[in-house]
Amino acid sequence: MTKRLPAYAALRAEADALDAADPLAAFRDRFRLPEGLIYLDGNSLGAMPADALALAGRVVADEWGNGLVQSWNTAGWFDLPRRMGDRLAPLIGAGGGEVVVCDSTSINLFKLLSAAVSLRPDRDVLILEGSNFPTNTYMAEGLAMLSGGRLRVRLCEADEILSAIDNRTVAVAITHAHYKTGHVHDMAAITAAAHAAGALAIWDVCHTAGAMPVALNACGVDFAVGCTYKYLNGGPGSPAFLFAAARHHGTVRQPLTGWWGHAAPFGFEPNYRPAPGIGQFLTGTQPVLSMAVAQAGLEIALQADLAVVRAKSVSLTELFIRLVEELCAGHGFELASPRDPRQRGSQVSWAHRHGHAIMRALIARGIIGDFRAPDIIRFGFAPLYVRHVDVLHAVDALAEVMASGAWEAPEHQVRDAVT
Amino acid sequence: MTKRLPAYAALRAEADALDAADPLAAFRDRFRLPEGLIYLDGNSLGAMPADALALAGRVVADEWGNGLVQSWNTAGWFDLPRRMGDRLAPLIGAGGGEVVVCDSTSINLFKLLSAAVSLRPDRDVLILEGSNFPTNTYMAEGLAMLSGGRLRVRLCEADEILSAIDNRTVAVAITHAHYKTGHVHDMAAITAAAHAAGALAIWDVCHTAGAMPVALNACGVDFAVGCTYKYLNGGPGSPAFLFAAARHHGTVRQPLTGWWGHAAPFGFEPNYRPAPGIGQFLTGTQPVLSMAVAQAGLEIALQADLAVVRAKSVSLTELFIRLVEELCAGHGFELASPRDPRQRGSQVSWAHRHGHAIMRALIARGIIGDFRAPDIIRFGFAPLYVRHVDVLHAVDALAEVMASGAWEAPEHQVRDAVT
Repeated sequence: MTKRLPAYAALRAEADALDAADPLAAFRDRFRLPEGLIYLDGNSLGAMPADALALAGRVVADEWGNGLVQSWNTAGWFDLPRRMGDRLAPLIGAGGGEVVVCDSTSINLFKLLSAAVSLRPDRDVLILEGSNFPTNTYMAEGLAMLSGGRLRVRLCEADEILSAIDNRTVAVAITHAHYKTGHVHDMAAITAAAHAAGALAIWDVCHTAGAMPVALNACGVDFAVGCTYKYLNGGPGSPAFLFAAARHHGTVRQPLTGWWGHAAPFGFEPNYRPAPGIGQFLTGTQPVLSMAVAQAGLEIALQADLAVVRAKSVSLTELFIRLVEELCAGHGFELASPRDPRQRGSQVSWAHRHGHAIMRALIARGIIGDFRAPDIIRFGFAPLYVRHVDVLHAVDALAEVMASGAWEAPEHQVRDAVT
Repeated sequence: MTKRLPAYAALRAEADALDAADPLAAFRDRFRLPEGLIYLDGNSLGAMPADALALAGRVVADEWGNGLVQSWNTAGWFDLPRRMGDRLAPLIGAGGGEVVVCDSTSINLFKLLSAAVSLRPDRDVLILEGSNFPTNTYMAEGLAMLSGGRLRVRLCEADEILSAIDNRTVAVAITHAHYKTGHVHDMAAITAAAHAAGALAIWDVCHTAGAMPVALNACGVDFAVGCTYKYLNGGPGSPAFLFAAARHHGTVRQPLTGWWGHAAPFGFEPNYRPAPGIGQFLTGTQPVLSMAVAQAGLEIALQADLAVVRAKSVSLTELFIRLVEELCAGHGFELASPRDPRQRGSQVSWAHRHGHAIMRALIARGIIGDFRAPDIIRFGFAPLYVRHVDVLHAVDALAEVMASGAWEAPEHQVRDAVT
């Protein structure tokens, strides 16, 4: 198939009709996307909000350049982690004072794993999903190393988690949507199982926050971390967020006890006293520019109804799966994401032994997805700016790449430093 | 005294002559300073480099907006921590491959305290300077808490450090210049004393990096942390740096083992394997915008001879002390910084019981210093953009504030949220 063949016209009409009926269509104008590019990697790095450039200019020129050190007060820099946390809270089903934006997901997970250990000092096992994004496992291993062998990390796969939880479990620390397959865990069921065994539940919502409703408090979640630079469009490496249920405030300890988490940060007391509430999860001085600019994407996300976002996400991924299976049949793609949309995040992954070269050929055609070793090509569908017509054109390009054998070209066989 | 009195003319001529002979004079044009402001707080937050705004625009609009996820490769985002570390290394007497820029000073100190413990597993005491900036103590306390009481934090003052080091000492972790007084420790002597006792030396060079020569390797320092947003003018909260002497690479462990510190970060292996070299000190995804913009200040600093920077710093602080003691005599200021310039960083602090109100009155007159509880007013002299004439005008304003009693005005009695 190419855009000139009869099948294209019918599919184009179908996609256009879906886009015409899309209640989120106007959100696309809130972003600046390069002309001619189809961006299906918002699950890795979200697109740039139209407001981001002016916001960066204001923070640099006005707040830093003119306000200088006084902007810690006058521009509210010092309060950004809590203020942005409170803004973000409704997107993940959290309450006011339960979320801060700070540091990286990895660092925040370390705080929360330690916090869980402080609440369950007589238990010794941390349960994680071994095949999910490995930084979480690595951080748990680091904590286990510091414990001198007292703590143990147990890696399970999805179907083993519930049965692995027992009376030695400190916490399950699970990523809500699998980074590679998009498989979405049942947050309520796993959290309930953890609690039934006296364990705690820590969720990493990097791949769901902003893409679907996340109900941390409704599910009884104890702690959570997540990312602002994927579906929340915060900018490259913008600070992560951390959730701690209010019921744990005051009783929990976390070890990255920097001055921003002190009860009196400007008292310069010789010994640490944790701030009340969520503040005790802060550590050191935050990267203000990256954090402030992340507000642009956050404010856009707050204007969209997450149920509508989720419905569009399902519509986009359903269309993508159907079209790839129709138009690329026989080319060896195996669906690596759940077929049931209720178990699938806002991404679709395919296993293909030549996945890396195929993705390079697609990128050369302006279709941006990514590759995850060893054989997964991954497409993310950010509902605020991806259209059904983009899905059609992406599959059209994929069909062309496969039919023509374009992926076999030598330039597509090269590996990137970062893939 | 005011600017209209005869003494002003002679002092002005003296200051102008010093500025005319200043080999660093041209550097001031590399910064954008607000008209009419005298900025003596570059030891807290450095001024904005003239290039910073364009750099921020390029990172946001071109690298993020147009390059999107591919900028991790094409704009070199992923390598920024090492690349900036290598650029920064000569400013602190480090070698290539010994420095990374990442995270916050607090987080990096936690990594290095843990690293020191991993090298001295049979020892149990961490020595810090109790009156220095307390986040370092707090982080050490957090590590001690995680150790279950095995590790102990011992707080000493400057004259007690050498005698406190013994065969139970894991490491001394000392801030090179005292944040409040500007007192500069003898890095070579303390490091040698630590080594003589089989302990390690960790230095926090937040208040010296960029303001004077720092000779980490010449002093035999094991590990160091520091700040890019003070004398290196990186921008508010720009990421910190971390130094680990090459001799420790490969033998040391640190527990914040995120995916950026893995030997194969894009291999997504289930278990952690440390990257070779300095890379193992990286943890999670870094705030690219804050980091990239910090290059503007770093590149300026690299063009200045640090011996010349130090000479100007001494000249500025000597003049400031002399003028305050001449022109504000009898107003109750007590020098809180060392009088010997060899023991003084690039700041001068005065104790005064009404320090907070006095600083507020100065700030209202466009003289920006800061206050540190309970009674210290603090003035930083960033040699790349502060002139001798600024010193004169700052003291002129201080004399006026004291002579007129302007500091007693009700509006200056109010405390800021962040001071």
